Amino acid sequence: MVVPVNPLDRHSLRTRVDAALSAFLDSQGAALIAMSPELAPLPTALREFLDGGKLMRPGFCYWGWRGVLGDSATAQEEEGIVHAAASLELLQASALIHDDYMDDSDTRRGMPAIHRRFAAAHREAAWEGSDERFGAAAAILLGDVCLTWCDEMFAGNGLPAERTAAARRYFDVMRTEVMAGQYLDVLAQAHGLDEPERAAQRAQTVIRFKSAKYTIERPLHVGAMLAGGGKDVIAAYSAYGLPLGEAFQLRDDVLGVFGDPAATGKPAGDDLREGKQTLLVALAAARADSPAAIKTLRAELGNPDLDTAGVAELQDIIRSTGALDDVETRIAALTDQARAALDAAPIDAEAKTVLGELAVMATARKK
Amino acid sequence: MVVPVNPLDRHSLRTRVDAALSAFLDSQGAALIAMSPELAPLPTALREFLDGGKLMRPGFCYWGWRGVLGDSATAQEEEGIVHAAASLELLQASALIHDDYMDDSDTRRGMPAIHRRFAAAHREAAWEGSDERFGAAAAILLGDVCLTWCDEMFAGNGLPAERTAAARRYFDVMRTEVMAGQYLDVLAQAHGLDEPERAAQRAQTVIRFKSAKYTIERPLHVGAMLAGGGKDVIAAYSAYGLPLGEAFQLRDDVLGVFGDPAATGKPAGDDLREGKQTLLVALAAARADSPAAIKTLRAELGNPDLDTAGVAELQDIIRSTGALDDVETRIAALTDQARAALDAAPIDAEAKTVLGELAVMATARKK
Repeated sequence: MVVPVNPLDRHSLRTRVDAALSAFLDSQGAALIAMSPELAPLPTALREFLDGGKLMRPGFCYWGWRGVLGDSATAQEEEGIVHAAASLELLQASALIHDDYMDDSDTRRGMPAIHRRFAAAHREAAWEGSDERFGAAAAILLGDVCLTWCDEMFAGNGLPAERTAAARRYFDVMRTEVMAGQYLDVLAQAHGLDEPERAAQRAQTVIRFKSAKYTIERPLHVGAMLAGGGKDVIAAYSAYGLPLGEAFQLRDDVLGVFGDPAATGKPAGDDLREGKQTLLVALAAARADSPAAIKTLRAELGNPDLDTAGVAELQDIIRSTGALDDVETRIAALTDQARAALDAAPIDAEAKTVLGELAVMATARKK
Repeated sequence: MVVPVNPLDRHSLRTRVDAALSAFLDSQGAALIAMSPELAPLPTALREFLDGGKLMRPGFCYWGWRGVLGDSATAQEEEGIVHAAASLELLQASALIHDDYMDDSDTRRGMPAIHRRFAAAHREAAWEGSDERFGAAAAILLGDVCLTWCDEMFAGNGLPAERTAAARRYFDVMRTEVMAGQYLDVLAQAHGLDEPERAAQRAQTVIRFKSAKYTIERPLHVGAMLAGGGKDVIAAYSAYGLPLGEAFQLRDDVLGVFGDPAATGKPAGDDLREGKQTLLVALAAARADSPAAIKTLRAELGNPDLDTAGVAELQDIIRSTGALDDVETRIAALTDQARAALDAAPIDAEAKTVLGELAVMATARKK
C-alpha cells in the first residue's frame, strides 16, 4: 500500500523549516528572558502555537524558489531560502493571534486561543483587574512581536542583499494585503446580509487579499524573487496561485460550516456562530426563496449561543439552496484552472509536480 | 524678545520628516484604496493621528547620525537619514494605537483614540454587531499596518545596504524591547500595589525598555549605525540616552498625575483613573504611613469613575508622601547625568548642542 506523501515533507522541508524556526525562537526567547524572566510566557506560548502550523506559506515560498532554480542551489543558498520561507510562518502566527482575538474565538489548532490562554493565566494567578483585558493585551503584544520577528527573520536570511531587496517588494505588499483583507472581512461582518449581492462581492474581495494572494500567490512571488526569477515566472505564479488561493479559501469556508471538529480542531459550525460573511453564506442568502429559510438565516447567523440543532438547521438551509454544490463546483473549476496554468508555467519539472500536489492538499483537505 | 527655538526645527527637520511621512503615506494610501475604496478610512485616520506627533524618535535618530557625520553628508544621504528617521514615527504610532486600546483610553493627542474613532463610525452607520469590537479590530489592524509600514519605510531609506543592515540590528532590538516593555507594563498593572517594593522595581524595568531605550537610546544608535559610527559613539549614546530616557518617562508619569489637560490633551489624573503602576505611584504606596492614605490609594487607584475631587485627593496623598519631590529630584539628577555624558561624547559639536536642547525638551515639557 502506498502511503501518500505530504508534499511539504519532500526534501525534508517541514523538518528544515521547523529547525529554522526553533533556532530563531531559541535566540529571540533567550533575549526576552534576559530582559526580564517575567517575559518567559511569551516565547513559550509562541512555540506551542507554531507547533500546530500547516506551513502552507513556507511551502509555497520554497517551491516558488525551486521553480526558478531547481536543484542547482548551493547548500548555503538552500539554508537561506528555508530561513526566509520559515519567516512567513511568523506573519501567519501574528495574523491568527490577532484575528482570533478580533473574532472572539475560543480555540485554535485544538488549543485555547492565545487571548484565552493568557486570560486563564490571569485568573489562575488571581491578579488584579480584568482577566479578559489582560488576555487581550497579551495577544495583541504577542502578535506584534510575531510581526516584527517575521521581518527580522526574513531580513536575516543570508541570501544576497539585492535578491532580498527585490523579494521585499512582494513581501511588503503581502503584509499590507493580508491586513487590508482582514479589515475588509471585519467590515463585511459589520455590513451583514442586508444586501446579499454586495455581501457576495465583498466576500470575493476578502478572499482575494486575505487568502488567495496572501496564502499562495505572494509566497510564490517572494520565493521566485529570492531566486532571481523574472517577469514570466511571476506571471505564471499569479495564474496558478490566484485561482488556487481562492479555492483554498472556499474549502476553508466549507469546513467552517460542514467540517468535522475532530479534524478541524474547532467546534462544528464555528463560522455560523461567528456570523462569518463567507461566499458560501452570501450565496445561500441570495438564493434562499422560502421566507422561513431567509428568516432563520438572518436570525441565527452570528448567534453565539447556536446549539447543535441550530447548526444542523442552518447547514440544511445552506445545502438546500444549492449554495454548497455551487461552491464545490467552483472549487473544482478553480483547481482545474490552477493546474492548467501550472502545466504551462516556465518552471522546473520537480517544482511543477510538487506545486500540483500542493494544489490537491490545499483544496481537498479536511482541516 | 528671543523666541526659544524647538530643537526639532533646526535645519527644518520637522518639516522634512513630515514631508517624508506624507510622501510615504500618499503612496501607501493610494495602494490601499486601489485594493478597495472601503479601505480609505485607514490612511485618513493614520494621517490625522501622525499630525499630532512630537517627533522625538526621529529627532534623536537624526541627531544621532549628525553626531557622527556632522554636516559632511551629501544631500542624497541627508534625504536617506530623514526617511529612515521618519519611519520610527510609524513604530510609535503602532505602539500608541495598540496601547490606547489595551489601556481603554478615550483620547490621544486631543482627539478620540483610534478604537473610539472607529467605534463611533460603526455607531453612526448603524452597522451590525458590537461597535466596540469593530473599533477594537480597526485599531489592532491599523496598528499592525503601522508596524509593517515602519519596517517597509526603514528598509527603503536609500542609504548604502551595509549601513542599513548594520543599523537594523538596533532597529530590531528596539522593536522587541518596546513590545516587551509594554507587556511588562500590563503585567505590572495586573500585579498591583500589593508589594510596593517589587512594584517600584517593576516600574524601573518598564521605564528602561518601554521608554529609556525605545525613545532615546535606540533611535540614537540607529542613527549612529546608519552613519557608520563605531563602538565609542554607541557607548556614549547609551551613557547619555539611558538616564535621559528615564528622566523623560518620569516626566511623563508626573504629567499623567499632575499635568494640565489643556497642555497634555488628556483628562486630568488620567494615569490615576487607569491605575497605572508608575514609579511615582509605587513610591507613594511604599512611603505612605497613614492607614487612611494607604487605604485610599489602594481603593481609588484604577477606579475608572474617579472624579475631580478624587483625583485631587490622590494628588495630595502622592505629594504629601514626598514621592513627587523624590521623582522631581530624580529627574534633575538623571538629566545632569545625561548632560555630563553628552559633554564627554566623541561627537560633532552642533549635534552636542542640539542633543543638549533635546534633553531640556524631553524633561522640562508640559505635555
